[in-house]
Amino acid sequence: MTAVSLVEMAQRTRQAAAKLAVLSTAAKNQAIEAMAQALTAAATDILAANGIDCQQAQADGISLPLYNRLKLDETKLKGAIAGLRDVGQLPDPVGQVHIHRELDQGLVLKRLTCPLGVLGVVFEARPDAVIQIAGLAVKSGNGVILKGGKEAIHSCQEIVRAIRRGLSATTVNPESVQLLTTREEILELLQLDQYVDLVIPRGSNEFVRFVQDHTRIPVLGHADGLCHLYIDESADLPKAVEITVDAKTDYPAACNAIETLLIHRAIAPEVLPEIVAALQERQVELRGDGGVQKIIPMNPATEADWSAEYSDLILSIKLVDSLDMAIAHINTYGSKHTEAIITEDSIAAETFLNFVDAAGVYHNCSTRFADGFRYGFGAEVGISTAKLPPRGPVGLEGLITYKYQMTGQGHLAAPYSGNAAKSFTHRDL
Amino acid sequence: MTAVSLVEMAQRTRQAAAKLAVLSTAAKNQAIEAMAQALTAAATDILAANGIDCQQAQADGISLPLYNRLKLDETKLKGAIAGLRDVGQLPDPVGQVHIHRELDQGLVLKRLTCPLGVLGVVFEARPDAVIQIAGLAVKSGNGVILKGGKEAIHSCQEIVRAIRRGLSATTVNPESVQLLTTREEILELLQLDQYVDLVIPRGSNEFVRFVQDHTRIPVLGHADGLCHLYIDESADLPKAVEITVDAKTDYPAACNAIETLLIHRAIAPEVLPEIVAALQERQVELRGDGGVQKIIPMNPATEADWSAEYSDLILSIKLVDSLDMAIAHINTYGSKHTEAIITEDSIAAETFLNFVDAAGVYHNCSTRFADGFRYGFGAEVGISTAKLPPRGPVGLEGLITYKYQMTGQGHLAAPYSGNAAKSFTHRDL
Repeated sequence: MTAVSLVEMAQRTRQAAAKLAVLSTAAKNQAIEAMAQALTAAATDILAANGIDCQQAQADGISLPLYNRLKLDETKLKGAIAGLRDVGQLPDPVGQVHIHRELDQGLVLKRLTCPLGVLGVVFEARPDAVIQIAGLAVKSGNGVILKGGKEAIHSCQEIVRAIRRGLSATTVNPESVQLLTTREEILELLQLDQYVDLVIPRGSNEFVRFVQDHTRIPVLGHADGLCHLYIDESADLPKAVEITVDAKTDYPAACNAIETLLIHRAIAPEVLPEIVAALQERQVELRGDGGVQKIIPMNPATEADWSAEYSDLILSIKLVDSLDMAIAHINTYGSKHTEAIITEDSIAAETFLNFVDAAGVYHNCSTRFADGFRYGFGAEVGISTAKLPPRGPVGLEGLITYKYQMTGQGHLAAPYSGNAAKSFTHRDL
Repeated sequence: MTAVSLVEMAQRTRQAAAKLAVLSTAAKNQAIEAMAQALTAAATDILAANGIDCQQAQADGISLPLYNRLKLDETKLKGAIAGLRDVGQLPDPVGQVHIHRELDQGLVLKRLTCPLGVLGVVFEARPDAVIQIAGLAVKSGNGVILKGGKEAIHSCQEIVRAIRRGLSATTVNPESVQLLTTREEILELLQLDQYVDLVIPRGSNEFVRFVQDHTRIPVLGHADGLCHLYIDESADLPKAVEITVDAKTDYPAACNAIETLLIHRAIAPEVLPEIVAALQERQVELRGDGGVQKIIPMNPATEADWSAEYSDLILSIKLVDSLDMAIAHINTYGSKHTEAIITEDSIAAETFLNFVDAAGVYHNCSTRFADGFRYGFGAEVGISTAKLPPRGPVGLEGLITYKYQMTGQGHLAAPYSGNAAKSFTHRDL
């Protein structure tokens, strides 16, 4: 990579992306295959570069989970390349016609999907993420400016070099995929609203919030994942216990893990002892409100607990007098991510699904299913807790927009208004 | 209306909206019919209130176009009530199922549309707008907090009183529709991101920009409408002249009117004299670049003109050497609203439609067609020049979002990962 200013780089990406935007599905799939082949050919160099990163990271005393994410081996690299080829197999999100309508004779409107333009993706020190993100960008017809965690710098550089080498023999301009290497460039990137159409920050909530606060570019990503499970008075006991354990302990750091358990007061004496036993067996720290403590002594949950995303083996528990109270608590404290009810009462379930305001509302299953792959989207570009679409787990559709194309034969607007106005046919084709 | 704080009012609207959100289409349509009947019954009071507003406005020396917008008479009121009934006839945007998928046996995912919650709409001094907006809000299942231009205060109060009276006999809580009456409340409203899900500002570009700069609530509305018409070297001359005149003069204050005309250098000597004559006949002030001035003397267009949205009978004209240069100019200076090419060359047309980055890209027709009613959406809630959807003219779909509903039978996520992971069926139902 030569030393160019970030603005110049973004401009070049934008130009390359404009051409990439209109390529055929076959051309994009060929480019993805070329990327996969180049990555395979460069495996030795990539693993060597990753070795340097890993050595440095160990010297810096990186934590084991972070080290495991950073570390590449042949199997992991092969898996990432296979995943890239999978992205090639996904349906092309571009060029889909939503509306095809004759407005009047000879005046035809089409609404069709098109790429956003240029994506800015800032992600953790996980070299394999580069491969996945670059593949999603090419498949969706977008240019992409990548910035990975600094611990992965050598790995990311070697991977992007291979990707660009692969693209150079295709119709996709290698300038479509760019890599930033310094932390300072992140803030600069966030200022480039003229050249970057969407920012996707991956990583901690704090980081996502930092990005949201420092850019006018739309941001795809959620800053909070504060999910609840509500055990209704008509809950099936074994389901309640098993789902609570799964939703809390399967992967506590995930945004779709639960932080607060709500239990109907009527069923609490029956359900609490079993749940507490099952969670304590898995080393979950429990914090209960007054009602909970009366049944089973435990640390108290304070007001702050209802707003806490622990992302850890901690769970707050609160008793509620009614379904309505559970819904009100969730709509007050939830982050609109994913909320679940356990009940055998179909009216209660329907009420919960209708009145809880969240991207995902679940009945008798674990909140942990909130995930693009599990939903069958093939790939996930992020999870959005925004109220406006795209909402929830977002597949390739998060990387596209649409435009209205209209073709006439010299049609003027004036004749369609005023006295003796022509009328529209509005006939879907 | 009693004196309550804006926060209290917003909370009440939110509670009412939560119930409105889940009403059936029939119930919402009944409410709209009740609104129409109450408005009809209150016609005398509404027109009397409007008389007070008009008298005051005349005393204040309001301009004639603003006065005409403010002024209600029986015909205009009847028209607005008929328009309200038309909204009742539109398809219900809520409850549409986009995705219905079995993830695994007994685990079923649905993505379905739902209301946003509460809308904040700030509009000009046009009393009939209250009727339309309230109708769109009820139809889409949203609560709405309205603020009209201060000149229309008595008219708006009387109209909202009638609407709420009409709703009081239906399943829609009258608190779903609220009216703010002071200018200070606008800024307060913009701070209520906890209670308001979307702000729709109508009015001047300056006002829209002000709203965008003063709220964290998503804003539906465009601050700019800087549209171009490009006359290609293969343009049909009569089409070029007629469309230019229509796109500039049909309604110069509209956001979809053109501000800059680009002409291919090769066709300029032939086309310019006719266009200039036709535009001057309609009192359009013309400003040309060097090339234009060599063919026909006129005032010079400066760099500032390429970024100017005149919203008036003024047009800047620039010669370009190629289609690519036209596209580059548009992608640099355009506001991504609506852009048109006049050409008989289908390759040129396709290139233009593909490479111009705007919500609307048109071939051989006037930019003035960019409008929700003309597109056949039945109603328009605004035009968006944002890159992310909704983009362009937005119908009821701008007032809705979606949620994912999942129903299981005790499904846990853990068995679907790790060794011997269960696989998903991902079968669309």
